[in-house]
Amino acid sequence: MPYAKGMDLNADAGESFGHWPLGNDEALFPLLTSVNLALGFHAGDPLTLHAAVKRAAQHGLGIGAHPGYPDLVGFGRRAMALSAADIYASTVYQLGALQGFLNIEGAALQHVKPHGAMHGQIHEQVDAGEAFCEAVSQLYPGTRLMVLAGPAGEQLAQQAQAAGLRVAREAFPERAYTADGKLASRQLPGSSIHDPQQAAQRALAMARGEVVSLEGQLVALKVDTLCIHGDNPVAVDIARAIHEAFDAAGLTLSRLGASRLGLDA
Amino acid sequence: MPYAKGMDLNADAGESFGHWPLGNDEALFPLLTSVNLALGFHAGDPLTLHAAVKRAAQHGLGIGAHPGYPDLVGFGRRAMALSAADIYASTVYQLGALQGFLNIEGAALQHVKPHGAMHGQIHEQVDAGEAFCEAVSQLYPGTRLMVLAGPAGEQLAQQAQAAGLRVAREAFPERAYTADGKLASRQLPGSSIHDPQQAAQRALAMARGEVVSLEGQLVALKVDTLCIHGDNPVAVDIARAIHEAFDAAGLTLSRLGASRLGLDA
Amino acid sequence: MPYAKGMDLNADAGESFGHWPLGNDEALFPLLTSVNLALGFHAGDPLTLHAAVKRAAQHGLGIGAHPGYPDLVGFGRRAMALSAADIYASTVYQLGALQGFLNIEGAALQHVKPHGAMHGQIHEQVDAGEAFCEAVSQLYPGTRLMVLAGPAGEQLAQQAQAAGLRVAREAFPERAYTADGKLASRQLPGSSIHDPQQAAQRALAMARGEVVSLEGQLVALKVDTLCIHGDNPVAVDIARAIHEAFDAAGLTLSRLGASRLGLDA
Amino acid sequence: MPYAKGMDLNADAGESFGHWPLGNDEALFPLLTSVNLALGFHAGDPLTLHAAVKRAAQHGLGIGAHPGYPDLVGFGRRAMALSAADIYASTVYQLGALQGFLNIEGAALQHVKPHGAMHGQIHEQVDAGEAFCEAVSQLYPGTRLMVLAGPAGEQLAQQAQAAGLRVAREAFPERAYTADGKLASRQLPGSSIHDPQQAAQRALAMARGEVVSLEGQLVALKVDTLCIHGDNPVAVDIARAIHEAFDAAGLTLSRLGASRLGLDA
Repeated sequence: MPYAKGMDLNADAGESFGHWPLGNDEALFPLLTSVNLALGFHAGDPLTLHAAVKRAAQHGLGIGAHPGYPDLVGFGRRAMALSAADIYASTVYQLGALQGFLNIEGAALQHVKPHGAMHGQIHEQVDAGEAFCEAVSQLYPGTRLMVLAGPAGEQLAQQAQAAGLRVAREAFPERAYTADGKLASRQLPGSSIHDPQQAAQRALAMARGEVVSLEGQLVALKVDTLCIHGDNPVAVDIARAIHEAFDAAGLTLSRLGASRLGLDA
Repeated sequence: MPYAKGMDLNADAGESFGHWPLGNDEALFPLLTSVNLALGFHAGDPLTLHAAVKRAAQHGLGIGAHPGYPDLVGFGRRAMALSAADIYASTVYQLGALQGFLNIEGAALQHVKPHGAMHGQIHEQVDAGEAFCEAVSQLYPGTRLMVLAGPAGEQLAQQAQAAGLRVAREAFPERAYTADGKLASRQLPGSSIHDPQQAAQRALAMARGEVVSLEGQLVALKVDTLCIHGDNPVAVDIARAIHEAFDAAGLTLSRLGASRLGLDA
Repeated sequence: MPYAKGMDLNADAGESFGHWPLGNDEALFPLLTSVNLALGFHAGDPLTLHAAVKRAAQHGLGIGAHPGYPDLVGFGRRAMALSAADIYASTVYQLGALQGFLNIEGAALQHVKPHGAMHGQIHEQVDAGEAFCEAVSQLYPGTRLMVLAGPAGEQLAQQAQAAGLRVAREAFPERAYTADGKLASRQLPGSSIHDPQQAAQRALAMARGEVVSLEGQLVALKVDTLCIHGDNPVAVDIARAIHEAFDAAGLTLSRLGASRLGLDA
Repeated sequence: MPYAKGMDLNADAGESFGHWPLGNDEALFPLLTSVNLALGFHAGDPLTLHAAVKRAAQHGLGIGAHPGYPDLVGFGRRAMALSAADIYASTVYQLGALQGFLNIEGAALQHVKPHGAMHGQIHEQVDAGEAFCEAVSQLYPGTRLMVLAGPAGEQLAQQAQAAGLRVAREAFPERAYTADGKLASRQLPGSSIHDPQQAAQRALAMARGEVVSLEGQLVALKVDTLCIHGDNPVAVDIARAIHEAFDAAGLTLSRLGASRLGLDA
């Protein structure tokens, strides 16, 4: 299978909170093509968000909204039964807050990606997914929604497309996959890849539309964007290794907004 | 002095929080011309804010942003030493969040009014006022900022105008004033007016550009908007009395956006 | 079946938050024998909690701790996947905070009752129930835990007893029950009883150890405490009707701590 | 002036929040004699607090309560106009929460120290200081309150003693002092000491009851406890240097509770 002409490389960012730093935006931003910015509900605060938008704009990154649950102490990672109406309103609120800073910095929204346990609820629960897509498409008709590459993202991908959104399928070079193209549980041995070279090879395979499963099978996986974890201590090493592997393969890392089809800004 | 052709009548609204109701938006909105909506920092939450925007739009009210301190338990009424940079970023964040819902409901922002103790800091502290005006004018060049009518509002009024904002001078028919045109301390006897007829007569005087001080003097006070307190149990009675007094005097209550000069939408 | 010699009548209380009042503690406390006090995570704040402890002590009520999820905006009513370790630590924290005010007011803890969605998790999830019982029994060996009367409370009742706690079985005169002794879903017609006389008759039946199911069957239900909802607008009427019905039947309402067996303070 | 027989060495701890780590409790605790634990209002959360209490008990440290303002995003460092009543209730709440974990771990409270901007308000505002001392002394009669060594702590020291509390006077080897024995502003050049050896020599001088002012004068300063900043990257180095300097001088570092006079537990 031929390589895609460009591949996006994203990470969550802007995740500090008040006095508490988190992640390494300064070192990582030069190595990314897109970022997903925390919006104050599960992480981030107004000053942190502004700094992250400014830094992302300086590096020419594709800026994504990363709305989450209102659960700071749990970092938005604990399942929480928000109503679909609350997911809708909380998404509008958080996207609006980001837009304020985008206006100030003269930047545009590239994509939206739900965070943490809200990501899970939106992928799994039909009315939650619909509410989320409705909020996004009402504010940003036709924008990109990041969904899980593989079968686990199909329901949300269809909801997004029905709402007039584009879809960016996301895969994780640092995570193992099962034979049916789903993320393997973190409980399983070998489910997390810590070696930068290995992660880079997996990233290359994903650019070819493939992933090697835990069981060693080659599984087809259509991928538009690769996500690495900014809070991983070796995140910078992994990002560098991906760049080197892509360079060696004659492949380009480029933000989603710099479309392969020349259709969008 | 001739009456102004129109006078705005505003109240704070959208101040419920989650399970806790506050105020009486349903009864009060039909009697107002503008509202100042809480934005989730000192009161309000995404669902409450959406409902308030929708209701305000249905009634054709001028919609104002009412940003405040991040202090739910203190309702944003406790002095809090935010840095100017934090006031700037917190204002951008809150205004952006509101804009999300304005987009959804096809409504436009009419004005901005700082809330509670942040209102105080912005009126009194030079760099706080500048930071606030900069945030507002970068997002909404030329929009209206509500400032205190009288000398206490002059510094902020000048900062607003220097930042290219328009100013709406606000007075309180339910509050007593001192001989120098400032709000009398709530500690003073007679500083709060509870009688709707008396409040209405004071509102009429304000429309003429006058207020009677605690000491009985007639004080000039240039006023563009009258504020009543939505959490006052007699708020509805006061609003009705003001409408009747204005009708009897042949005066109009109209939102700021429906400009007396025909200059704005 | 003979009536129990005394029956406890409890309600949730201390549920105001900062500027937002909730419930009607002033009118309701004289009619109760026990209260479950919100502890600042899902409702309440330090000033509210102190006032509630003081008022409860003045009325001689049995004071209960009512710990909940850290979810103010959702009032602790949204399912939230706290780890068992977090339930343990959050319970210790909230019980400790209450104990501070009990010390100040010279009062003693009568019982513990989990709140809202945490109540659900503790009743349903084995390790959550164990963690909760361990936290309570380490701080208050032998104290009473309120559990659902009927089969839904059995697992937690056994965990509590295994941890050396006593159990107070709680039923709801305002709620309908199914034929197997469980609370009927609030979605079902007739699941909420609004008529004070009807609620009072159901309370009397519960004191006899019986409840009439939605389908009209007489179901045995061992009950130690009756719960009414303080945020119900007719809560005071229901409490009065229960008092009158118990008086007429020669029955006593008395707090759990004033034990029927004379064994405890 | 002879050296004191023992000197306490304290640091703030338990300051992580949810997913965000802060400080280096693991490395620092073996080098301290006392800790001031964050209690969930300005930092900390139930799991973090429990871990910190357990670790402090394992190291035999004197455990102190470190209550602060309800301002997570500002880390309790922003001035905030809490009423005296709210300071009282918030202190009772936070001390109670800590006591829960002390009970669980079989540990006892050694001292109380207000945090950040609340520390400032309590030292400066008479009714705030009284309210705080009343809360502490009602819960822990006769316990120690840490106050600023020097004239800035005198008012609070007197209030504490009037409330029956003992006083532990606290000085900062990493901070410069003025000629009148007050902490020099952090804005002044040379106001922060980063060199571990220099900090250790200042700590030794403080044990002799002296400090060298910014202007080079020797100023008398009665000191019971030395505070180092756990979030300082060289905190561990400073603590080690203090230990070495005290060893070389034949002096002991010991927790307040291990009294020099044999009077307390």
